[in-house]
Amino acid sequence: MSSLTTRIVVPSLLLALSALAAQGADDVKMPVGYRNWFHVNTMIVDKASPLFEGLGGMHNVHVNSTGEAALKKGGSYPDKTVFVTDLHDFSISDGSYVEGPLKGVAVMVKDQKKYGSTGGWGFQFFAGGDAKKPVITDPAKQCFECHQPQKDKGYVYSTYIP
Amino acid sequence: MSSLTTRIVVPSLLLALSALAAQGADDVKMPVGYRNWFHVNTMIVDKASPLFEGLGGMHNVHVNSTGEAALKKGGSYPDKTVFVTDLHDFSISDGSYVEGPLKGVAVMVKDQKKYGSTGGWGFQFFAGGDAKKPVITDPAKQCFECHQPQKDKGYVYSTYIP
Repeated sequence: MSSLTTRIVVPSLLLALSALAAQGADDVKMPVGYRNWFHVNTMIVDKASPLFEGLGGMHNVHVNSTGEAALKKGGSYPDKTVFVTDLHDFSISDGSYVEGPLKGVAVMVKDQKKYGSTGGWGFQFFAGGDAKKPVITDPAKQCFECHQPQKDKGYVYSTYIP
Repeated sequence: MSSLTTRIVVPSLLLALSALAAQGADDVKMPVGYRNWFHVNTMIVDKASPLFEGLGGMHNVHVNSTGEAALKKGGSYPDKTVFVTDLHDFSISDGSYVEGPLKGVAVMVKDQKKYGSTGGWGFQFFAGGDAKKPVITDPAKQCFECHQPQKDKGYVYSTYIP
């Protein structure tokens, strides 16, 4: 590719990609280092739960430093807040529920402008925690619908447990 | 206090305090900020477990940055490694195990020299997470006895789950 072509083609490509990203969940990136973020809570969705088919497993929820204060105060979340659910399998051993292998990583990113149609949140789920395996194609239906009842809590289910 | 007295009394006091500390678990401090440390794993000890009476609850385990690499590599833990178990109550709601209020904070601090008689680990448990409510008076019996079978893993039960 000549340098002239590069100068013309690359910006057009970037423009096209960013337009595409704004429509869906494609631009929500797989975060790194989230196991060193603030641990919000853990929940296990067991077989008896009606949510088991879609959400079964151990949910270890983390929030980045941008959102930590809002979680604790209970206010609205600033842009660039990221919640991560580190979703693991679990097994039951002698009456204890024990964490198993990683199933996937669910991400919520706050950007009031970019994700205005889904409550200001971008959603994605990475199968096996693999940045190259995003599975959400319709965040409004696959994610936001279930978060909508939490509108007065900024569409977030997690609460601060001291 | 004159400067002469200070020079004599203060070192003696420090010596006396450090001798006292070496005897028990009194010098293991309640750590701060551990919910921002690396989240090692979570385990729920449920009613059916033989451990429920003593250890029932949701165990959210964290390790500080000093011990994080050793946890991942599986080697022995360097001095100043700290493990914290943030122990919470839990409730079962519609098939899900949900985190409840804090019951207490269990701490393991590595200091090969100071805690040589208990595998190089100092142990303490703070009721309700209150720094003023340490409950362990005999770490050898109340803590180390149960960790002894894990000798080849540095007396640590937690393993790294990617």
